[in-house]
Amino acid sequence: MRLSQFHLSTSKETPADAEVVSHQLMLRAGMIRKLAAGIYTWTPLGLRVLRKVETAVREEMQAAGAIEMLMPSVQPKELWEETGRWEKFGGQLLKIKDRKDAWYAYGPTHEEVVTDFARNELSSYRQLPLTVFQIQTKFRDEIRPRFGVMRAREFLMKDAYSFHLDAQDLDRQYHEIYRAYERIFTRLGLRFRAVFADTGAIGGSASHEFHVLADSGEDAIAWSDGSAYAANVELAEALAPAAPRPAPAEAMREVETPTQKTCEDVAALLDIPLARTVRTLALVGADGFVVALARGDHAVNTIKLAKVAGLAEYRMATEAEIAAHLGSEPGFLGPVGPKAAVRVVADRAVAAMADFVVGANRPGYHLTGVNWGRDLPEPDVVADLRNAEAGDPSPDGRGTLAIARGIEVGHVFQLGPKYAEAMGATVLDEQGKARVMHMGCYGIGVSRIVAAAIEQNSDAAGIVWPEPMAPWRVAVCVINPKNDPAVAEAAAALHAELSAAGVDSVLDDRGLRPGQMFADIELIGIPHRVVVSARGLEAGTFEYRSRTAAESEALDRDALLARLGIGAA
Amino acid sequence: MRLSQFHLSTSKETPADAEVVSHQLMLRAGMIRKLAAGIYTWTPLGLRVLRKVETAVREEMQAAGAIEMLMPSVQPKELWEETGRWEKFGGQLLKIKDRKDAWYAYGPTHEEVVTDFARNELSSYRQLPLTVFQIQTKFRDEIRPRFGVMRAREFLMKDAYSFHLDAQDLDRQYHEIYRAYERIFTRLGLRFRAVFADTGAIGGSASHEFHVLADSGEDAIAWSDGSAYAANVELAEALAPAAPRPAPAEAMREVETPTQKTCEDVAALLDIPLARTVRTLALVGADGFVVALARGDHAVNTIKLAKVAGLAEYRMATEAEIAAHLGSEPGFLGPVGPKAAVRVVADRAVAAMADFVVGANRPGYHLTGVNWGRDLPEPDVVADLRNAEAGDPSPDGRGTLAIARGIEVGHVFQLGPKYAEAMGATVLDEQGKARVMHMGCYGIGVSRIVAAAIEQNSDAAGIVWPEPMAPWRVAVCVINPKNDPAVAEAAAALHAELSAAGVDSVLDDRGLRPGQMFADIELIGIPHRVVVSARGLEAGTFEYRSRTAAESEALDRDALLARLGIGAA
Repeated sequence: MRLSQFHLSTSKETPADAEVVSHQLMLRAGMIRKLAAGIYTWTPLGLRVLRKVETAVREEMQAAGAIEMLMPSVQPKELWEETGRWEKFGGQLLKIKDRKDAWYAYGPTHEEVVTDFARNELSSYRQLPLTVFQIQTKFRDEIRPRFGVMRAREFLMKDAYSFHLDAQDLDRQYHEIYRAYERIFTRLGLRFRAVFADTGAIGGSASHEFHVLADSGEDAIAWSDGSAYAANVELAEALAPAAPRPAPAEAMREVETPTQKTCEDVAALLDIPLARTVRTLALVGADGFVVALARGDHAVNTIKLAKVAGLAEYRMATEAEIAAHLGSEPGFLGPVGPKAAVRVVADRAVAAMADFVVGANRPGYHLTGVNWGRDLPEPDVVADLRNAEAGDPSPDGRGTLAIARGIEVGHVFQLGPKYAEAMGATVLDEQGKARVMHMGCYGIGVSRIVAAAIEQNSDAAGIVWPEPMAPWRVAVCVINPKNDPAVAEAAAALHAELSAAGVDSVLDDRGLRPGQMFADIELIGIPHRVVVSARGLEAGTFEYRSRTAAESEALDRDALLARLGIGAA
Repeated sequence: MRLSQFHLSTSKETPADAEVVSHQLMLRAGMIRKLAAGIYTWTPLGLRVLRKVETAVREEMQAAGAIEMLMPSVQPKELWEETGRWEKFGGQLLKIKDRKDAWYAYGPTHEEVVTDFARNELSSYRQLPLTVFQIQTKFRDEIRPRFGVMRAREFLMKDAYSFHLDAQDLDRQYHEIYRAYERIFTRLGLRFRAVFADTGAIGGSASHEFHVLADSGEDAIAWSDGSAYAANVELAEALAPAAPRPAPAEAMREVETPTQKTCEDVAALLDIPLARTVRTLALVGADGFVVALARGDHAVNTIKLAKVAGLAEYRMATEAEIAAHLGSEPGFLGPVGPKAAVRVVADRAVAAMADFVVGANRPGYHLTGVNWGRDLPEPDVVADLRNAEAGDPSPDGRGTLAIARGIEVGHVFQLGPKYAEAMGATVLDEQGKARVMHMGCYGIGVSRIVAAAIEQNSDAAGIVWPEPMAPWRVAVCVINPKNDPAVAEAAAALHAELSAAGVDSVLDDRGLRPGQMFADIELIGIPHRVVVSARGLEAGTFEYRSRTAAESEALDRDALLARLGIGAA
């Protein structure tokens, strides 16, 4: 490709309404153009990157035994009513009425359509397992679309679905797809983590999210430096401290804390580490009033809290309820000497503390030197209530946790019989008995990967593509092509030679001034830049520069080709 | 690919609701499945064919200098209002209201979106010309979707748009794309015609339709056997007869035709050729009552009629108007001796007739031996009013016309400044003056081509794919694979060898009975079938059969490879 025959449209100005770096750089590089809120055109430059992602995804899915098909984007309401999702999916479902007043949705996902396909196509266990996938435009009517294609309304997705006779076979294919996902992100040159995910409300039996690591990511991920363990921070288990609870060393005493209502303020007043204090939460669960305790320096995790028996649908207690049970007001609460009997739920770390500091249930006072068993009964429940933190031991016993931020770009899920049950998708087994199929579903946000890759790989000059995602691997830049035919010819010859050797190369023959040309090539993130100039020709060298290097090097032809991974001819 | 790992789902029964052969065979072969009216899922088998078409289209468009991009399917109402098409496009435009009550359309075409892109991206003549294309899902809310994917509501289309400084450059690129289209349909192995089309209401300066020839086609095409001339029958010019008008030979006389109101009945009664009679149409145009004449055996062409001065918006005359002007009733009308002065418009063929037969303007009577100049004045207007017919001389003076039926699968159109004008898409020219861009648009119905190819290529056993469109070029069929490992192994080895040589091959290892297996392979239209059996292995031969041959041949390995176009290894 010659850039003079292409449509490149870059800009130096950072667009005012683009909040994240990937959105800014995709606009500046001219990869996307906004048509409406959350709806983007992919320019020729952007599409080149999108297609590279698409190809990697397609090939690795096929290698995992998945077969490509193409389902419609417009889906009839009746199917969505069978699973109850016409209502349950909520406002993200873009509903459409046709000229005959029939209702449809622009598919945000295809569980209903594919399950309908399966119940019509599959009748015997002999046809199983079957894994199908498609790469297709989806629409989710996000209430607040933003960050460019990172959270767009119209987007490109790979969705796959597998059908099985039983849970074991589903589990086998689930891991097959899991490995395909690892290959996809590895092949694209991205740093990523497969993160254990909560199957929560959907009720499947296993689920992992795939995150591209980037400081700007929305999700915090806890990962082990000694194993493949990774989980969303909110889901990562915080183990109980390895050391046993120390023996009491202090006597309990009441200290004045007139205006100190937080652990931080109390610790500052008493000049003790925050980790010596205990935070008290007053809650109301299914069985009434509960006090939950976490160490002052730990973040309470509401998902874990809700997993404690009786707290599935807990709420914060009102001031009246607090007064009735603890005889105090918020800011000075604690588990010692409550007005009425209350249930105490302690985080594992709190249960292992001695000589801790907690509210005195008396306005203006805290207690120091508090000890379990001596000053108050042992907790009713000891549970993991807090977020995992960097430095915690990995829950799998191997290594130490670190925290990274990530952008979710893939999700694998064992749905089990959920959709097949709702839609009556059965096959006859070997005994001729009808059995509900087990299903897996596997998504990848193809367009989102492009933005996530930029969040992970950019610098002040622009995008720094991993080679496999770059619109072109090599840019051959010509200095002064219009006035120097020999230079133009040498550059065209090099470009042709690279292309013939299978190197994805672009010839920048636009005739721009060098500074402007180089800025463009850096902004759009081409990994290898080769400059052809009259001076170089005379010296028999090309000026080579890697996108990640600070300096250029003068290389002769053979050295250049070797650097670009081509054996010298 | 092994068929045992694929999802093939064929049927012997012809679906009751499928009217045309392509729809029937696509359902029977299991290429598509209906989800809703005019909305189809492409199964893995169908998608393989669709992708082959897509690839051919993409590569030839790129060869014509077009650059691929991807515009959104969901388009804001505001853009469609700028061109007035939000209303004018009619019921086919699928309108969508999002959760914020903003209106959008599911794009049936992208003139508005691409013109908006162009006015934002292009500011200088230096950026022109630019031709972009996309291959994308479109939606047209057909009032009566039918014929499967032939006239579906959701369909796959390649749409391209070009932008130019002036009409000459548009014309140049128009012909470039025209040639790309010829390459596409040739490469796909289809018999087709590029048909001159009417630019009529849209007002562009040139337009051609590309038709795949098939007896079941909706459109009749007149094409020359002596040149590249082809046009829709309704648009093909019918030249004036080459021979001059003969001299009168008969006297005019009135004959009784009591119940004979049509040319056919009058010719039968008088025992004369239909070509001796003249059909009379009573019309009212801008200047009042008009009589139009065509030969009895010719089909009057209403498009041509409307091109006569004063008849642009003609209507048929009422019986009262006929009585007032001709003094007669329908069935016995003619141009001789009208009650009042009327304007006579004669087809070129009629103007060249002598001794013809026409209504007498007296109920129950016709006139024979009528002659221009003697029995009535020469016609006021002589024009081409009829459809071209097989055997007519080609309008370009080279060859004779034949009539074929065709299915429109492509359309190229010089839009000129129409959309750019409406949407203010200008660039600065060399003099720094703003100029409205000239545009071309170029569509190909990618999914429609699949159906059209089947309409052109099928037999009693099923689809007969042109090689470039077949889901696989070669099927290697194994007899009894489960009980005969040597046969299974030999077949797998042949399949691997073909695949390694770049031959798109499938291994039918499903273990079906031969009859059932062969019926499937014929139904899905694989061009080359190779059977591997124990008997063949013993004899050192494979049983080869072309999809179009009546008999199989026993070929040794080298002969087989040669037949499949691979040099013997």
